[in-house]
Amino acid sequence: MDTIVYGRNAVLALLAASPEKVEKVYFQFNTAHPKLKEILIRAKQLRIPVGKARLEKLCEIAGTTKHQGVCALVTSKTYSPLEEVLDAPRNSNPLLVILPGLNDPHNIGAIIRTAEAVAADAVVLVEGKGSPLNAAVHKASAGALSHIRVSKVRNLARTLLFLREKGFQVVAADMEAEANYTAVDYTRPTALVMGSEGKGLPPEALKECGSFVRIPIAGCVESLNVSVSAGVLLYEAMRQRLG
Amino acid sequence: MDTIVYGRNAVLALLAASPEKVEKVYFQFNTAHPKLKEILIRAKQLRIPVGKARLEKLCEIAGTTKHQGVCALVTSKTYSPLEEVLDAPRNSNPLLVILPGLNDPHNIGAIIRTAEAVAADAVVLVEGKGSPLNAAVHKASAGALSHIRVSKVRNLARTLLFLREKGFQVVAADMEAEANYTAVDYTRPTALVMGSEGKGLPPEALKECGSFVRIPIAGCVESLNVSVSAGVLLYEAMRQRLG
Repeated sequence: MDTIVYGRNAVLALLAASPEKVEKVYFQFNTAHPKLKEILIRAKQLRIPVGKARLEKLCEIAGTTKHQGVCALVTSKTYSPLEEVLDAPRNSNPLLVILPGLNDPHNIGAIIRTAEAVAADAVVLVEGKGSPLNAAVHKASAGALSHIRVSKVRNLARTLLFLREKGFQVVAADMEAEANYTAVDYTRPTALVMGSEGKGLPPEALKECGSFVRIPIAGCVESLNVSVSAGVLLYEAMRQRLG
Repeated sequence: MDTIVYGRNAVLALLAASPEKVEKVYFQFNTAHPKLKEILIRAKQLRIPVGKARLEKLCEIAGTTKHQGVCALVTSKTYSPLEEVLDAPRNSNPLLVILPGLNDPHNIGAIIRTAEAVAADAVVLVEGKGSPLNAAVHKASAGALSHIRVSKVRNLARTLLFLREKGFQVVAADMEAEANYTAVDYTRPTALVMGSEGKGLPPEALKECGSFVRIPIAGCVESLNVSVSAGVLLYEAMRQRLG
């Protein structure tokens, strides 16, 4: 499903040939080699997430001791440009699920699974934010990742503005919102934005959300697990769309 | 939150004094000591789950090397007998969430969190089945475990029969069911049964379920994550009960 490329020259060649396939680059802690620095600079220019790992951990990720201080996680998923998704939508009134920066692979995977279950048009991720589409995400998605388009956008706020100009309502889940989630008409073209665990959305993106909805809580907890929240919202959309 | 008791005499004394507090007993692989055998027999009589772990793993669980081949996970949660829950319900038309044998602590924790969020009366577990209420469940519940009653029953089928005699409708989630989950009236006293991941419910329990409901799938995946399914069903109940 996922591939690991290791070694300084191999990773450098990969970044030159197929940067869009690289989910994350892992470096060894406390190593200095001109080529490692070159790889680091290149990855940052390409907005590819980088991580540092201790020697043992890096060997585990690379599956070998011959990694020369660096390895890269390559995804088997081909990303679909958002424009392409909108040009050939799955639904006459498209439904998008935007995940700007979720960190837990189980949550991302479970949301991708639910999004595919309600036949959403695509899941939209933001470059350099949140967990890469690694093996844990694939597993938690229970195969859904193979059946749903995934887009990766550079700038969340600009994407939300673009979607609104295209006629989408942008709905963000927010525990502080006044509107109940059942009060929204999800039969319209809808982009549902799920903020990251605990942190919510960045301010510049908040400005571009047309409406905020709250899932009511009758008990003492403050919120739901983000994949459960996404499920509740997506199935309310499904309930309305089924009629 | 959870406590580990280790050492042969300590675990034996614990099983004598507070067996209801013991979530699971862990034994070291390939060890023979008459007292270990005595503990194993006692735990099985008490229907307490037992697990075997390699020496290293047992040291990790016990947090010490002085475990003498055995340790026990003690929960801080006080279980509420189901009769007690029904005698003092939180809702005039009680709502119970029955989890017979879920194995993933993240799923159990997320469902407990959602059950508390909709102010369900209790979560019902089955003795000896599924994951113990360990630290991972506590964490995934985001504190909800402290705010909701949990009952542990000996026999699932008999409990479902008992609940039906008490006027509950017993609703089981089942991807093969004909009825859509929105077709049920959840404002009545309701016991919602969520089968274990992948395996569903045992046949003798299936007989005691009054209705089976399906969450519709418009995409290619076969099912949802069980904690997402529980969220969709519980919030449909909440939607009906609020409005």
